[in-house]
Amino acid sequence: MAVASGYEIHAVGRVVSELTETESAPRQGDEGAPDAWIEFEPGVVAALADVAPGDRLVVLTWLDRADRDVVVVHPRGDPSRPPTGVFSTRSQHRPNPIGLHPVEVVEVDGRRLRVSGLEAVDGTPVVDLKPVLEGEISER
Amino acid sequence: MAVASGYEIHAVGRVVSELTETESAPRQGDEGAPDAWIEFEPGVVAALADVAPGDRLVVLTWLDRADRDVVVVHPRGDPSRPPTGVFSTRSQHRPNPIGLHPVEVVEVDGRRLRVSGLEAVDGTPVVDLKPVLEGEISER
Repeated sequence: MAVASGYEIHAVGRVVSELTETESAPRQGDEGAPDAWIEFEPGVVAALADVAPGDRLVVLTWLDRADRDVVVVHPRGDPSRPPTGVFSTRSQHRPNPIGLHPVEVVEVDGRRLRVSGLEAVDGTPVVDLKPVLEGEISER
Repeated sequence: MAVASGYEIHAVGRVVSELTETESAPRQGDEGAPDAWIEFEPGVVAALADVAPGDRLVVLTWLDRADRDVVVVHPRGDPSRPPTGVFSTRSQHRPNPIGLHPVEVVEVDGRRLRVSGLEAVDGTPVVDLKPVLEGEISER
């Protein structure tokens, strides 16, 4: 079966956050990320129509500051940890730097969502939003 | 901040599965998906080096048969359900058709992984693989 190996992925929105430095961003959402906004493109307003406060969603981002040539890292940037293949880590540096962020919707304001627990820095492209399936992601 | 809105995403592997028809594929992994293989590209072998049987991972796919112009669907294709914005559904039809598949690694054979519970059809491009964080995804 012949399939092209490259596809075009588009930003459907952007993170608006007080987190502005890659280095200072908490690495996971339970490590102190503030509330953030996601501002969506006008073309996806209908896709957003049924999102409501209290919804638990997975935000998918494109981590555009990542190094896509990296296949091995020291986990969490800690040189005392052994080098590890990136598919066994959540490093942002990986061939396709897609971030997965479980969040809860706090507020809906037109085509902007306020969400809790989003650790991405300001300006990060958002590429998808999905509901968490019943029982799929537990509370920590 | 000016950022281009389009990015190139590459297949790092492919699903090899007995599921060959989009219509017959179970819609979620707990609805009867058979074990499947993922065959990785030679360039990402080092990224895969620390994956072992028993690991619980999230496979990210690019659902290349999806209709990217769809923003509203009847959930699960059921016309009796009200039309719903795709960001509140797990429909494959959406602006960026990324699939999220929680799986367990059954076997590692060179640059092939056998995984349980992967509902994607044969030939589906795989774009990333991440460990499930402790407590993030619960058993159903």
